[in-house]
Amino acid sequence: MVERTVTACLLIIGNEILSGRTKDANLAFLGTRLNDLGVRLREVRVIPDDQAVIVASVNETRAAFDYVFTTGGIGPTHDDITAEAVAKAFDVPLIEHPEARAILEDYYPAGELNEGRLRMARTPQGASLIGNPVSAAPGFQIGNVFVMAGIPSIMQAMFESLRHRLVGGRPLLSRALSVALPESVMSGGLGALQERYPDVEMGSYPFHRKGIFGVTLVLRSTDEARLAAAAEELHGLIRELGEEAIEERGGEPAEPAAQGRRG
Amino acid sequence: MVERTVTACLLIIGNEILSGRTKDANLAFLGTRLNDLGVRLREVRVIPDDQAVIVASVNETRAAFDYVFTTGGIGPTHDDITAEAVAKAFDVPLIEHPEARAILEDYYPAGELNEGRLRMARTPQGASLIGNPVSAAPGFQIGNVFVMAGIPSIMQAMFESLRHRLVGGRPLLSRALSVALPESVMSGGLGALQERYPDVEMGSYPFHRKGIFGVTLVLRSTDEARLAAAAEELHGLIRELGEEAIEERGGEPAEPAAQGRRG
Repeated sequence: MVERTVTACLLIIGNEILSGRTKDANLAFLGTRLNDLGVRLREVRVIPDDQAVIVASVNETRAAFDYVFTTGGIGPTHDDITAEAVAKAFDVPLIEHPEARAILEDYYPAGELNEGRLRMARTPQGASLIGNPVSAAPGFQIGNVFVMAGIPSIMQAMFESLRHRLVGGRPLLSRALSVALPESVMSGGLGALQERYPDVEMGSYPFHRKGIFGVTLVLRSTDEARLAAAAEELHGLIRELGEEAIEERGGEPAEPAAQGRRG
Repeated sequence: MVERTVTACLLIIGNEILSGRTKDANLAFLGTRLNDLGVRLREVRVIPDDQAVIVASVNETRAAFDYVFTTGGIGPTHDDITAEAVAKAFDVPLIEHPEARAILEDYYPAGELNEGRLRMARTPQGASLIGNPVSAAPGFQIGNVFVMAGIPSIMQAMFESLRHRLVGGRPLLSRALSVALPESVMSGGLGALQERYPDVEMGSYPFHRKGIFGVTLVLRSTDEARLAAAAEELHGLIRELGEEAIEERGGEPAEPAAQGRRG
């Protein structure tokens, strides 16, 4: 049975991420949560607060992926240009959304809904709001594009408000086996195993912990039986090398700051 | 005087970043260090270990930016496909680089340079090597594309090995003023200031620390005098609102996890 993969792209909007000043904390959250819903995060782009770049990136990615999420640039100041840019990308006017204005009027004490805050009621015409239980000012959806705040606590609350709108496929299941062997010792056997299991994605991530060089092998598939068979074979392969893999069940272990290889 | 901005793009290659399993630690390093050299990091893309996607992304970005950096996917296992994909993007054969092989032969004890490790000697034809003082296996440069390891310590060492090859423009200077006022109170005056200083980029980043809601205003320009004038005016604007800004000189303060706005 071939099932189409449901895909997503995240656009992280903000000069402060590109300058290195602020570290993004939304990618990992979204990648994990989308997968639980059967949606694969296939690309992330970090782009500057530049209207032309935002417009081009939104239009390119909304045509290429099932869902596009944006974070950042929807606050009260002049550098918050995401709503305007998304309206331009969809070629619709930017309007003051009546429901969004009502939410802000209800949230702020009388006299405190100033011009800057009112900017946060603006959406492209035809957008539907995304609730913000943290600080009221809503995000919005237009077409397959979901526009969210950049502050992680608000972004996460907005995601919970919108997740029922997403229609995913089968979630990707995973098994993670860690072993105290150098990555290159495993490479031959792992490559051969990958060839026999093209439907199981196999990743190899070296680590160096407490003086031990080892590798975590992550297997991912939407097919539970195939995943189990591949994991069984991998355990056997490791035993042939005289080692025993440690498996962290119930998800993938967090492996900080060891993203790459060559070395 | 109008000076062209020298631009860069970073391609972070790896399923493990998109799945949320591993957090990227290279973006912030590269953004900061490139700026010191007068090169602006203008876009970052996180893409999967998928040859077609890597080829398309390399070709799109090397045409659009002065420099392209990649991290990840150059280790010894089957899922390390960056070298092959970059060769394909440049339409040249993937070869065993004699100098790279000599480096690996010198580094590993006799008999330990196995098939997996030899994969790390492969580069596109015509590439020049990037030194790796941490674990020997080199990165490489072809055209304006620099291919580096994903492991942060190795990536950083490789960057030091290649930085003399980069020709930058004037570095972007910055001033960061923090004030205990809600972002929206500043928005009108800041927007007006931005209009009078189109050559000074003004960013507004709210924070919530020790029960205080405040905002850090970051001014950036390549022109020292204009930057100083804008900062002086901003200090005045804040005084008019009855507050005094705290300025962290000598660079931008690290503001963890408060990347966005709307709220």
